[in-house]
Amino acid sequence: MENRVTRLLGIQYPIIQAGMVWTAGWRLASAVSNAGGLGLIGSGSMYPDVLREHIRKCKAATDKPFGVNVPLLYPDIDQHMRIIVEEGIRIVFTSGGSPAKWTAFLKSHGITVVHVVPGAKYALKAQDAGCDAVVAEGFEAGGHNGREETTTMCLVPLVCEAVSIPVIAAGGIASGRAMMAAFALGAEAVQIGTRFVATHEASAHLAFKQAVIRSQEGDTMLTLKRLVPVRLLRNPFFQQIQEAESRCAPVEELQALLGKGRAKKGMFEGDLENGELEIGQVAALVKDIRPAAEVVQEIWKEFCEIKEAICSWPL
Amino acid sequence: MENRVTRLLGIQYPIIQAGMVWTAGWRLASAVSNAGGLGLIGSGSMYPDVLREHIRKCKAATDKPFGVNVPLLYPDIDQHMRIIVEEGIRIVFTSGGSPAKWTAFLKSHGITVVHVVPGAKYALKAQDAGCDAVVAEGFEAGGHNGREETTTMCLVPLVCEAVSIPVIAAGGIASGRAMMAAFALGAEAVQIGTRFVATHEASAHLAFKQAVIRSQEGDTMLTLKRLVPVRLLRNPFFQQIQEAESRCAPVEELQALLGKGRAKKGMFEGDLENGELEIGQVAALVKDIRPAAEVVQEIWKEFCEIKEAICSWPL
Repeated sequence: MENRVTRLLGIQYPIIQAGMVWTAGWRLASAVSNAGGLGLIGSGSMYPDVLREHIRKCKAATDKPFGVNVPLLYPDIDQHMRIIVEEGIRIVFTSGGSPAKWTAFLKSHGITVVHVVPGAKYALKAQDAGCDAVVAEGFEAGGHNGREETTTMCLVPLVCEAVSIPVIAAGGIASGRAMMAAFALGAEAVQIGTRFVATHEASAHLAFKQAVIRSQEGDTMLTLKRLVPVRLLRNPFFQQIQEAESRCAPVEELQALLGKGRAKKGMFEGDLENGELEIGQVAALVKDIRPAAEVVQEIWKEFCEIKEAICSWPL
Repeated sequence: MENRVTRLLGIQYPIIQAGMVWTAGWRLASAVSNAGGLGLIGSGSMYPDVLREHIRKCKAATDKPFGVNVPLLYPDIDQHMRIIVEEGIRIVFTSGGSPAKWTAFLKSHGITVVHVVPGAKYALKAQDAGCDAVVAEGFEAGGHNGREETTTMCLVPLVCEAVSIPVIAAGGIASGRAMMAAFALGAEAVQIGTRFVATHEASAHLAFKQAVIRSQEGDTMLTLKRLVPVRLLRNPFFQQIQEAESRCAPVEELQALLGKGRAKKGMFEGDLENGELEIGQVAALVKDIRPAAEVVQEIWKEFCEIKEAICSWPL
């Protein structure tokens, strides 16, 4: 399929694997890129030297385009950006912060920049900052999320209306049918996180992957809204947060409860009791752990099948 | 378009107007039915004699199928059900309660029954109770809503997977594009509320309709989660609720604050300060007050156009 996003990124299918912390290393990114999608290395959980190692291994593992996701609030961001330029990365997805500061820097090095937004006003700012495209990420997405709680169904048309650069939909998408829904709403590509957590190549702990595929409807919830809203899988740690929030515990208590390293503990070390388990609502529809290439192929196949089905409707 | 829902309801287009309180009287319902969709009278804000009057006026205004929405927790439900049977209503949409009690009664009078659900497990119960179809209503919908917070994008596939009866999508749908998205996810019809509030025939107060079309992204929020979750437009009354909830006010205080008659005050009397303004997230995409027939025609036209566009994609 050829459209503005496949041309911009030089990919075969408009399917982008989200650069998730503790999950999206070189194995996952290269597997997705080799399958014709766009793989992203999630730098948000990597020290600078670890990021460099992942970039080099990814380059060795694929000759297809891949990119790096950079959370803009990352403390070592200067070093990350330097490494990205030194290693010749051509595509960067930024998230969680203002695109004003770093977009011009990346563009001056000829890098394609895509920014992740939870609302149309942020999409406009990204366009004004010079971004080449935006990811419109809905309320149902896993991990950190916007305060407006706008769902993918409402967000994608709002962002498409606000900007002229291409829009990539994220949140609630794990199938070809949902990909078609996103395209019907105006998106030109999809960014998929949760479905790629449940792959062999994801660096997340097997216990976390198994918890994801076991999860049912209602098992994720957007929480910690008084700090930074984040969608988590229900577990004992989540229940502790809920208990504290239900009695209006002070923000300092919530911060202390969250502490440091909870995401690593949960997603990378597989501590399902005490860890922070970031995952999207669509986990309820994910039922198996598969090779990432099969996920890309299945989503694309179903997307083509639903296209044919739609064309056959006598209207 | 012919599918299981259009055949079940005897309608031309698989577009159903939600039976909203204070908004969906005989004028709106008959206008939508005359335009080829299914109009629903919202009985939840009507005394029994008012309901009978609306049914009779609707019958006089259209010879097309129309129905009545009945909230199952309505105090006068016995009288409502008796009137529905006496007046020869052929289609009932039930919501907000268990379908176990009333479905068999309605079916025994040859009435088609559709139940509104916020989750797959409730859809299964509706199917088991003998309902002919379900409405899967996502988190983004206006008014009362489920505790799981499952969005339309995730909910529709989950419900389609759980039941074999037809699924009607609701929440976030105000355009032909969104209708196509719902169909791609597996729905066979859409139920639309918010877009029909902003019509000439809606019985809601003009001040409320104007507030709806003025509203922007982020202007609605799901609130009162400790009572019954409800999505409201932000206004001074909403701010009072937020203030009370932010300090964990006791449930009794929230109940006293809500009081009685807030929905009528806001939506029917147009008190934008003190009234409860129930509306969906998609209000941010609704920009004008139009005749209901034009809304039906425009949505259908855009649905057909997006179908043609999808068919033209070279995959």
